[in-house]
Amino acid sequence: MGRTSDAGERILAAARSLIELRGYSALGVAEICKAAGVPKGSFYYFYASKEALVLAVIDEHWASQERSWRRILDGEAEPLQRLRRVFEETTATQSAGQQSCGTISGCLFGNLTLEMSNQTEAIRGRLQEIFDAQIDLVEAVIVEALARGEVTVGDTREAARSVVAQLEGHVLFAKLYNDTERLGPLWANCLALLGARTPAEV
Amino acid sequence: MGRTSDAGERILAAARSLIELRGYSALGVAEICKAAGVPKGSFYYFYASKEALVLAVIDEHWASQERSWRRILDGEAEPLQRLRRVFEETTATQSAGQQSCGTISGCLFGNLTLEMSNQTEAIRGRLQEIFDAQIDLVEAVIVEALARGEVTVGDTREAARSVVAQLEGHVLFAKLYNDTERLGPLWANCLALLGARTPAEV
Repeated sequence: MGRTSDAGERILAAARSLIELRGYSALGVAEICKAAGVPKGSFYYFYASKEALVLAVIDEHWASQERSWRRILDGEAEPLQRLRRVFEETTATQSAGQQSCGTISGCLFGNLTLEMSNQTEAIRGRLQEIFDAQIDLVEAVIVEALARGEVTVGDTREAARSVVAQLEGHVLFAKLYNDTERLGPLWANCLALLGARTPAEV
Repeated sequence: MGRTSDAGERILAAARSLIELRGYSALGVAEICKAAGVPKGSFYYFYASKEALVLAVIDEHWASQERSWRRILDGEAEPLQRLRRVFEETTATQSAGQQSCGTISGCLFGNLTLEMSNQTEAIRGRLQEIFDAQIDLVEAVIVEALARGEVTVGDTREAARSVVAQLEGHVLFAKLYNDTERLGPLWANCLALLGARTPAEV
C-alpha cells in the first residue's frame, strides 16, 4: 500500500476500471480495494458507501468528458463540423479502450443508466444532469447552425436530444458487436436528423 | 409451492420481473426462488446456472416481441406506416410497464447489452442474434419502401441499423427520465434517417 493520501485516488481509479468492465452491481467493496491495493477497512474512510463511490466515478468521468466536449463544441470550427468532431472523439475513445482491454466498454453514463437508473434515485438524478448538460452543449451548436441556415429543425432542444440519443444507440451497438465500425453512421445520421443532409462540406 | 411442473415457469417469470427491475448482476438465485415461491434447492433442477436462466428469459422475451413485430411488419399497411406502428407498440409497452411498476424498465435487450455483453460471450452472442433479427425485419420494410420510391437510403442494412439504434437511444432516455414522452420523436426521426422527411401521410 502506498501513501494514505493516494489510497482514495486508487480506490476511485480501480472502481472506474472495474465498473467499465463489469458494471456496478457485479462489484464488491472487497474486490475494489484489492484492485486498488488498499486494505478493505480503509474504504469507508474515503467513501460512505458503494453508491457514493460510483457517484464519484460518474463525476470524475463527466468532468473529463465535459472538458473534451467543451474544447470541441466551444471551438472555432463551423458548427456542424464541431458535432462531427465529437463523434470522431467518441470513436477514438472507444477504439483506445478496445485496444487497451480487448473490448469496447461503451458509454459509462449509458451503461449505468440502463443498469442502475431504476435502482437508486441519486444515480438517476446525477445521470439526468449529465445528459441534460450534454444536450445543452449540442443544442447550442444546433442553434448556431440554425442561425446560419445550415439546418432545418423545428425544435432545437428535441433535435439535440435526438442527436445524443442516436449517439447512445450506436455506442450500444459498438459495445454489443465489439466493433467501432458501428459508429460509422453517426455523422451522416446527425445531418439527416438535423435536416442538413447535403451540406457542401460532407 | 404449487405443482412441480409449474415451478420452472414460476422461476422464469420471477427472473423476468426481477431482471427488468434491477438487471442481472444484482440478483441472486435465492431471491429469484423466493419470489417464485420455489425451494432454492430445486433451482438447478430447472436451470444449470443463472446464466442459463437469463438466456431463457431473453429467448422468451424475444419470442413474444418477435411475434409482435412480425404481426406489424409483415402486415398489410404501407411500409413506413408499419415502422410507425412498431414505435407506437414500443411506447404502449413501456407505458404499460410504467403503470404496473412505477418506472419504465426500458428494453430488456438493451439493458442486458450494456450491463452484460462484455461479461459473458453466451449472452453477447444471443443478444447479437436478436438485434440482427430486429434489423432484418426493419430492413425488409425499408427495401419495400425503397422500391416504392418512398425513401432515399443508399444502404438499406445500415439504414435499418440506424433506425433500431435510435429506438434504443430514445428508450434509454425514456428509462432515465421515466417519461414515455421521450419516445415522441421516434417516428419523425425515422423518416429523417430514411430520407423520407415529408411523405404525404405525416
